[in-house]
Amino acid sequence: MTDTQTTARAEIGVTGLAVMGSNLARNFASKGFVTAVHNRTQARTDALIAEHGGDGDFVPSTSAEEFVASLVKPRRIVIMVKAGGPTDAVIDELAPLLEDGDILIDGGNAKFQDTRRREAALREQGIHFVGCGISGGEEGALLGPSIMPGGSKESYDSLGPMLEKISAHVDGEPCCTHIGTDGAGHFVKMVHNGIEYADMQLIAEAYDLLRRGAGLTPAELADVFAEWNRGDLDSFLIEITAEVLKQVDAETGQPFIDVVVDAAGMKGTGTWTVQNALDLGVPVSGIAEAVFARGLSSLAEQRAASKDLPGPAAAGSVDDRDAFVEDVRLALYASKIVAYAQGLDEIIAGAEEFGWDIDLGAVARIWRGGCIIRAKFLNRITEAYDSAAQQPASLLLAPYFTDAIAGTQDAWRRTVVFAATNGIPAPGFSTALAYYDGLRSERLPAALIQGQRDFFGAHTYRRVDRDGSFHTLWSGDRSEVATD
Amino acid sequence: MTDTQTTARAEIGVTGLAVMGSNLARNFASKGFVTAVHNRTQARTDALIAEHGGDGDFVPSTSAEEFVASLVKPRRIVIMVKAGGPTDAVIDELAPLLEDGDILIDGGNAKFQDTRRREAALREQGIHFVGCGISGGEEGALLGPSIMPGGSKESYDSLGPMLEKISAHVDGEPCCTHIGTDGAGHFVKMVHNGIEYADMQLIAEAYDLLRRGAGLTPAELADVFAEWNRGDLDSFLIEITAEVLKQVDAETGQPFIDVVVDAAGMKGTGTWTVQNALDLGVPVSGIAEAVFARGLSSLAEQRAASKDLPGPAAAGSVDDRDAFVEDVRLALYASKIVAYAQGLDEIIAGAEEFGWDIDLGAVARIWRGGCIIRAKFLNRITEAYDSAAQQPASLLLAPYFTDAIAGTQDAWRRTVVFAATNGIPAPGFSTALAYYDGLRSERLPAALIQGQRDFFGAHTYRRVDRDGSFHTLWSGDRSEVATD
Repeated sequence: MTDTQTTARAEIGVTGLAVMGSNLARNFASKGFVTAVHNRTQARTDALIAEHGGDGDFVPSTSAEEFVASLVKPRRIVIMVKAGGPTDAVIDELAPLLEDGDILIDGGNAKFQDTRRREAALREQGIHFVGCGISGGEEGALLGPSIMPGGSKESYDSLGPMLEKISAHVDGEPCCTHIGTDGAGHFVKMVHNGIEYADMQLIAEAYDLLRRGAGLTPAELADVFAEWNRGDLDSFLIEITAEVLKQVDAETGQPFIDVVVDAAGMKGTGTWTVQNALDLGVPVSGIAEAVFARGLSSLAEQRAASKDLPGPAAAGSVDDRDAFVEDVRLALYASKIVAYAQGLDEIIAGAEEFGWDIDLGAVARIWRGGCIIRAKFLNRITEAYDSAAQQPASLLLAPYFTDAIAGTQDAWRRTVVFAATNGIPAPGFSTALAYYDGLRSERLPAALIQGQRDFFGAHTYRRVDRDGSFHTLWSGDRSEVATD
Repeated sequence: MTDTQTTARAEIGVTGLAVMGSNLARNFASKGFVTAVHNRTQARTDALIAEHGGDGDFVPSTSAEEFVASLVKPRRIVIMVKAGGPTDAVIDELAPLLEDGDILIDGGNAKFQDTRRREAALREQGIHFVGCGISGGEEGALLGPSIMPGGSKESYDSLGPMLEKISAHVDGEPCCTHIGTDGAGHFVKMVHNGIEYADMQLIAEAYDLLRRGAGLTPAELADVFAEWNRGDLDSFLIEITAEVLKQVDAETGQPFIDVVVDAAGMKGTGTWTVQNALDLGVPVSGIAEAVFARGLSSLAEQRAASKDLPGPAAAGSVDDRDAFVEDVRLALYASKIVAYAQGLDEIIAGAEEFGWDIDLGAVARIWRGGCIIRAKFLNRITEAYDSAAQQPASLLLAPYFTDAIAGTQDAWRRTVVFAATNGIPAPGFSTALAYYDGLRSERLPAALIQGQRDFFGAHTYRRVDRDGSFHTLWSGDRSEVATD
């Protein structure tokens, strides 16, 4: 049912009615909320009402003024336009029309720094600005996404129940929680996407090892992934991997995977995750290797010229196929745990840097449904943080995951060895193992690096046996001087 | 000899007389240039003249006005203050005192984006601004650094001969060349530092494998590195590694390396190198792993809690020690070639993005002396780019390096296998090998990633057999549609 506007009665508004915005508006309306809709060009609004007006109670409008006037106070408006300039333009248009206590929500993939800037500026005007990560793509927006809202606690009191209602639900619990103030929601969404990159890269490496290393066909691999989806790896990405591998190209009769150009695209959030981790000093090597692997795959000229570089040919078969498949499964599981541990470390570091009070158990809980990395595994992460008297210093140190990774040791190492020996690139598996071994090393060769830095740049070093900073007079008599 | 100012006669000026600036001024003066010197606080100027006034012909000044007036036109002024705000403050103070055609040089470690901004602003005022990378630390500044000036070609005509004279020289050639316009010099200096991080990390991994894996003592390792310094690896960093490992702590009688806290510090340029590579889409995994390894080494709390994580203990001995040492040497050599290839790719991408005409052969040539990564090896890089009728698509594809890396294959792979099996982290060696194998792979599993992306986000894919973009209706009948 649609309605021409007579009085303010809409409970929520959505502006920007491309597919994501349109689906989100339909989601609100279908859950019983009176939903105001607006788009810069009127045609999209008309199309939404024409095609889906029957989904619920929509209030269309032809101008920003009419749109704002159609909403009950405090007004709640979700902006679903392109990140960057277009978002600022919509904010600039709407803000003057709003009043104290109104809530503006940015549901796009904004950089969290932009969200912090906007939140501070709008707070000055008495407006709550909520940077809100929404994961799950077009289908999630319509049927139930994972929602990561930042912004003030006060805004969540008013907005949260509505977001929770339209979000995905797992075991009766909504996949939406208040992440933290200002940019916390967009920050966590960014890291979510970074973890997604790592997850996809690890699955791709498993596929490559099994196919090139052991000679499994795409059809056989579809069965392997479908089987894996019934165990510890149970997740949306494993599930769709089986579907993609099962697909046969209608035109050629070839496996679908073989007709697709092997150059992976990306949209930026993986890159941001790594860049911000670098700012925060957090080693997210699993995510970085995933981003780099996509970059490498797109180096068309270099790859074409590099095909004859010397190196072994992949074996193409193994003695015990079942044992090898299980090795790779365990390597994938272990590497995935490491990638999540690194991503969660970035969230912890971001929370500390920007003053957010983020509940990691709750974050893992709302990732269980709606979003791309949804997985059974996330229940274990939630338990690791919810049950602990003290937060573990790393996900790897939560007893469940320490045990899990203990069970993968030999298989994980054999898989990395197989990759190196057979010339099949496994940067994700390798870096995860190196990170793990780095963390558990009693002494690291970083001491040598400190020695080198002191030698060429007088950067000083600390001693293991007493406090202070020291410098050795390398170009002098090589005695040591205290420097503070 | 010092001189009170009567008339403009100084050929070069240096403002900012901390150690780097003071040493650079002494370098200019000792090469016969009349050198104006200035510092915000007069005491430093006085100290320089008192201690080193005899090194050459200095013209001290007590104010910015006097400093500028002491210089012949076109004036050439090197700013040696902290990067960021302090640099802007000095520019703001000096610019109004300068005239058309004068040259301001920033010799600090500025971000190249800042240099581009400053160059554009000063160009409006008719002033040449030269962002100038200077490598070699305090000693280099005094005795001959590697110098990487950007800025206009015109400014180099006037300034270049002086910089070439104070730079390091190798085989009679100066370690200074005009890198490219605006921020090119600081960009290349940044990548130089990123490569330095990778180089140091690879050396650290070699040390760790030989020590923990094969049981060599620091004294024995000092001999190994000294020996390596007589072959393909001949370089400043290998040389000082031997010196650091030879050092014995006077206080405890222990090897120096064992009394140093194994947490590596960093100052930012490695981080910037990776962040900018990510912006440019260049996979610099070797540099990234080096930055992450330093980050990991500093995670004191996590490391302390992780010591009992399950995994193998390092063997501590090997059957054939000499063969193992040679394996590690070759793995280091191969991984180093990959790290340089990645860094040079970043320079190529930066040059393309920002419109710089950078001669890679010349860059390698000026890195042969003065700077931290100086190495015999760089002659081969220069040859690779100077001799080629067409630039190789990657350093790895220059015949000399393809051959070199062919000779390392088995050793490199055995070393990565040894690290994974023995639980000794070798992220630098591993990522270099994975990158190499990725580049030479005929097909990469990126095709699967494209399939996943199309499945969950309708991101589309290309086909190997014809042009265009395509999408499979995954939630529909799974037929394929063309999308452009």
